Amino acid sequence: MKERFSGTVLRPLDNPDAKRPTMGEIGLNQFAPYLMNRVISRWNANLADDLKALDITTAKMRALAILSITPSATINELSVFAVTEQSTMSRTLDSLEEQGFIRRQPRADDMRIRDVTITEEGRAAFEQLWPTMYDGFQKMFHGIEEDEYKAFIGVLHRVLHNIRKHDI
Amino acid sequence: MKERFSGTVLRPLDNPDAKRPTMGEIGLNQFAPYLMNRVISRWNANLADDLKALDITTAKMRALAILSITPSATINELSVFAVTEQSTMSRTLDSLEEQGFIRRQPRADDMRIRDVTITEEGRAAFEQLWPTMYDGFQKMFHGIEEDEYKAFIGVLHRVLHNIRKHDI
Repeated sequence: MKERFSGTVLRPLDNPDAKRPTMGEIGLNQFAPYLMNRVISRWNANLADDLKALDITTAKMRALAILSITPSATINELSVFAVTEQSTMSRTLDSLEEQGFIRRQPRADDMRIRDVTITEEGRAAFEQLWPTMYDGFQKMFHGIEEDEYKAFIGVLHRVLHNIRKHDI
Repeated sequence: MKERFSGTVLRPLDNPDAKRPTMGEIGLNQFAPYLMNRVISRWNANLADDLKALDITTAKMRALAILSITPSATINELSVFAVTEQSTMSRTLDSLEEQGFIRRQPRADDMRIRDVTITEEGRAAFEQLWPTMYDGFQKMFHGIEEDEYKAFIGVLHRVLHNIRKHDI
């Protein structure tokens, strides 16, 4: 699809009443939400395929990834960070506990909250799948320089701050 | 969640055998696929809510958006650009046709292919919802300068090229 960009995409902040550019004026290929949807759905589909070969689901992988880098997390935190519905995360944790990959313990000062931690077996399982994930990530960003990557991450942080619903 | 970045994220291209950094070394907040999943799922959820109030689905909006800027498209193209399964897109087009928003015509030189075009009514319907969409987009990129936005788009194009399955 040809580029149809013919002007500024974002209205100047000092002039919020400026006329909105049309979708045609911006062009689909300059519209970030479109490109991000294309990219992330492809990344998720590729990764799900790779993980299937390793006999693990995306939700499990995400829970293990998060728990591998934090001392403990609640189901609410896991569901936000893993971008996974609480109900799905709850079933995922049940299954990970059965596999011996995580532990759940009521918090001493608030028994309603259960802290989830990763076991040595869970850590080993994540280490087994990490090379696949990292290599896919590497392929995705092939040809992008470190400083471009940092600027890209910087924009993502601000964008997430602008639209996030959860304060984490 | 604290930043845990402590090194380069991407291995140097001239040294593909360099040791892979771990997830903990990179840090979740420096891992682009994580941030992109957070951002795009929030964008999609917010937009779906807004569109619900306007009595239209995300798939319909995406089909109209694409058709509003191109003379015609096939169902295959629409399904790739709209990041929507062919079966869902097929039902979406049935419904859009019933509403009088699109037309489907067999191509003269290959009757198996049907070209989808937008009607004046479809164009008007998209114009009605575009301000909502554009304003959400504007909010999402609040505080991002035009040159940062262009660099961000440039990285997205290269990333999509690296991982896309379809040649469009």
